[in-house]
Amino acid sequence: MSSDHPSTASSPATASASATASSRGAVPAFQVMSVLQRVAELRAQGRDVISLCAGEPSGGAPSAVNRAAAEAHADTALNYTPAAGLPQLRAAIAGHYAHWYGTQVDPEEVIVTTGASGAFLLSFLAAFDAGDRVALASPGYPAYRNILTALGLQVVELPSGEAARYQPTPELLDAAEAEHGRLAGLIVASPANPTGTMLNRAELTALHAWCTEHGTRLISDEIYHGITYPAPGEPDPRGVSARELGTDSVVISSFSKYWGMPGWRVGWLLAPPELRANIEALAGNVALCPPHAAQRAAAMAFDDAAYQFGDLQVAGFAQTRAALLERLPELGWGPVAPSDGAFYLYAQLGTALGGFPDAAAWCAALLEEEGVALTPGDDFDAVHGRQAVRLSFAAGPDAVLAAVERILVFQRRHAA
Amino acid sequence: MSSDHPSTASSPATASASATASSRGAVPAFQVMSVLQRVAELRAQGRDVISLCAGEPSGGAPSAVNRAAAEAHADTALNYTPAAGLPQLRAAIAGHYAHWYGTQVDPEEVIVTTGASGAFLLSFLAAFDAGDRVALASPGYPAYRNILTALGLQVVELPSGEAARYQPTPELLDAAEAEHGRLAGLIVASPANPTGTMLNRAELTALHAWCTEHGTRLISDEIYHGITYPAPGEPDPRGVSARELGTDSVVISSFSKYWGMPGWRVGWLLAPPELRANIEALAGNVALCPPHAAQRAAAMAFDDAAYQFGDLQVAGFAQTRAALLERLPELGWGPVAPSDGAFYLYAQLGTALGGFPDAAAWCAALLEEEGVALTPGDDFDAVHGRQAVRLSFAAGPDAVLAAVERILVFQRRHAA
Repeated sequence: MSSDHPSTASSPATASASATASSRGAVPAFQVMSVLQRVAELRAQGRDVISLCAGEPSGGAPSAVNRAAAEAHADTALNYTPAAGLPQLRAAIAGHYAHWYGTQVDPEEVIVTTGASGAFLLSFLAAFDAGDRVALASPGYPAYRNILTALGLQVVELPSGEAARYQPTPELLDAAEAEHGRLAGLIVASPANPTGTMLNRAELTALHAWCTEHGTRLISDEIYHGITYPAPGEPDPRGVSARELGTDSVVISSFSKYWGMPGWRVGWLLAPPELRANIEALAGNVALCPPHAAQRAAAMAFDDAAYQFGDLQVAGFAQTRAALLERLPELGWGPVAPSDGAFYLYAQLGTALGGFPDAAAWCAALLEEEGVALTPGDDFDAVHGRQAVRLSFAAGPDAVLAAVERILVFQRRHAA
Repeated sequence: MSSDHPSTASSPATASASATASSRGAVPAFQVMSVLQRVAELRAQGRDVISLCAGEPSGGAPSAVNRAAAEAHADTALNYTPAAGLPQLRAAIAGHYAHWYGTQVDPEEVIVTTGASGAFLLSFLAAFDAGDRVALASPGYPAYRNILTALGLQVVELPSGEAARYQPTPELLDAAEAEHGRLAGLIVASPANPTGTMLNRAELTALHAWCTEHGTRLISDEIYHGITYPAPGEPDPRGVSARELGTDSVVISSFSKYWGMPGWRVGWLLAPPELRANIEALAGNVALCPPHAAQRAAAMAFDDAAYQFGDLQVAGFAQTRAALLERLPELGWGPVAPSDGAFYLYAQLGTALGGFPDAAAWCAALLEEEGVALTPGDDFDAVHGRQAVRLSFAAGPDAVLAAVERILVFQRRHAA
């Protein structure tokens, strides 16, 4: 890397510098992934760690999906698939919109992606140019912000506090546009990560109308659809899809959550007609194709048995959620976000923070001392999340209740 | 999408426009992926298609790898792995550098990625800021150019013709820097796609020295290492790795080619120390992690049996290559690139183009009429590739020789 010796070339770069890192690449780590790394290290040392930091359902995939994956690997060669995914999977995903939402979707709208992550990247590239402003709620999924930043986009964080149930509103968008200028995009997530709050039909319709009126591209992250805890008789129990409101939004979802397949890296997006060709071309260049065996297997995720399996997992999350909420008074955390969907508890630590300067320090100590991995809240909200934590209860009641016991021990030890 | 009605909000965007597509997302399709799409459609219609358009080895993965993948799917839950990959896989890949190159690599240098594609994206983001210039040889792998463009980087194509054996040289770099200004990066591929030419140790060392002197980040795509056709006793028969010359280059490779696992989407990069933290943080945000089961399986790709399997595949490619080269005079193509490595024949069609305006039209007609899929050369070189084709001979001798017969029929039918 040294360039002390003079250049011998008569080029404009004779006053040479070492090759450097980019400034845009200096994004914060998604802390969930850093915590997972530490969990892996501790487990490699033989430590007994309860990992509640990531959104990883404990029940795994439907059995027909696992069977299909194993069979795919008995084949000789797993080649590239078309960039937009295997035709049978695109058709199966299209059918899912008829089944859950009563909405007819053309398989051509469906682009299979390498997880929802792949869908974020492709849709941000296809919809936005460098310098464009994209709004999102804070707290929110940190990778939205970090991918947008890496791609040279301006992130406009909407201060969606408790009063707005942690979701964007037309009023917040008006205020943001007045302050920052035209918004090229709005990302919504319902159920939201980390708060679990949802947009009902009227709320999503109002946001969609605002976007239509302002020439703002709506990107709807629906990865937690189906993982909801509605009261009996509540409308739209799976969540409302932006696709029900028209074809002009980018709809993103995945097999990672309802179908329990986070490590498989298969998701999808529904592309508005005017973005479809560009997204497909980007996909073929940026990713070539999503994983082949996982695609073949995922096509098996839409029969009655697979939906029954998914619903059973959700019933399990509901039980774990109820058990966890029962222990909340003992933990002394609060305020706590509603958790109407998804499988996270997002809570301010309050007095439970004890003598720690912030939740990051608290979480690090909890992991080292008691072998419980939570995610510090500043990952989701740099301003108001510094004393908050996110706990994933997707790991099931045994793991979660055992973690609660360890957390109580930890909190007693560190009580102020 | 209509915004005919006046906005009700008193925001700066009242003169609203519809949400649009980005300009940077309008990259050309990677034509290989478009051709694959057409191959899938024709096969769905029952057509017998010989697909020589993509770099897909016909022999599949080593059996221990397939076995491990099937076993991974017998597990209950396939969760996220650490963003940089499973520790055992990172260690196994590090060991590969000792085995093939006699170079000690720390597992911490290894970032497992979602195919080499994932490694391109992460390294381009980590090494270059928008507006930076990155040089590469033309003809070359089109996705380099298209990913760079989508990320707002300036592509500087080096006119690496037959005289330079289709590779960059210090002289070409001097000329490019004199014309365009400072080069932030240089991408090299040896063996190259589509031409198969290689950089020997002296050539790669000279390019590395030029980069060191000019503060240019060298990115070495080594995905075709091991797939080479050296004369007996030739030095560096697997290819020379930029990692042998120091830790300052980004080295990229994959399981897709030598190990026959294109659809698995697992590759890796070796990260220079000063880029490592940023690449890992980007990976955790942009991709979360590479596919879990494929990672577990890929860790089995480094024992004696797996290397023997790989070498056997390469011996097969060599036989197919020899058989194909024997038929070249009949085909009447030329000039033909050397094909010293990888498994492509890149050739000007010459008089075989017949009455077609370009190779794209020729390839489209060949696919529809005879069911043989090749890739038109303008995918790799917009200037000199318009009358060239790339033929992948990784599909094995039967497929390739059957394709030659069909191509001869096609050429006779369309002879001028």
